[in-house]
Amino acid sequence: MNTINLAEKLSQFSSHWDPHVVADYNANEVMVVKFQGEFPFHKHDNTDDFFLVLEGEMQMDIDGEAPRKVRAGEMFIVPKGVVHRPRAAAECKVLLIEPKGEPNSGDADRIPAPKPRI
Amino acid sequence: MNTINLAEKLSQFSSHWDPHVVADYNANEVMVVKFQGEFPFHKHDNTDDFFLVLEGEMQMDIDGEAPRKVRAGEMFIVPKGVVHRPRAAAECKVLLIEPKGEPNSGDADRIPAPKPRI
Repeated sequence: MNTINLAEKLSQFSSHWDPHVVADYNANEVMVVKFQGEFPFHKHDNTDDFFLVLEGEMQMDIDGEAPRKVRAGEMFIVPKGVVHRPRAAAECKVLLIEPKGEPNSGDADRIPAPKPRI
Repeated sequence: MNTINLAEKLSQFSSHWDPHVVADYNANEVMVVKFQGEFPFHKHDNTDDFFLVLEGEMQMDIDGEAPRKVRAGEMFIVPKGVVHRPRAAAECKVLLIEPKGEPNSGDADRIPAPKPRI
């Protein structure tokens, strides 16, 4: 039960699309992640997907809709079942929340990131 | 399904200890709140309590332990059942997550805030 400094946690890794768990909130994992480039389109059938941009800017593409910009200090929640794709032209640092055991890639044909704990 | 700017949401009210709901994440409400002064000691028997400081600095008092500082860019999760008291000498802006229907005052003898949606 300690204060968690998110910038310090983010300084511990440099990989992209590689969420690292920093805390538990009930049955969820709270993670920090660095985005750069483009993730595949995917959906999570049984959970909403929580994004809060800590530094930089990302784009959230929603299947069939205009993309949304999400900048530092802004959040975006993708409701369950909605096909989406995060992407970022330059590196972007993000806080994520997902239920424990949920693959970050949802239903996409991609090996999920292992989500190490830091 | 839109980008949520937390500073813009916080600009809509000036009251303290008065969380406003900005989004839903599964069965939880995501809120912004302004702390100033001292909240009563309380606990939540059935849920962890999620705090992320967006601006300023708060202190988290844990019953019987040394207080923890939580500054902008830092988070603190109080596990369920742990008696705690947030306080802030100067105004501090915080992101909170709690299950829908959970009183912000937990088991304290205090009327819970109504949590309006903005």
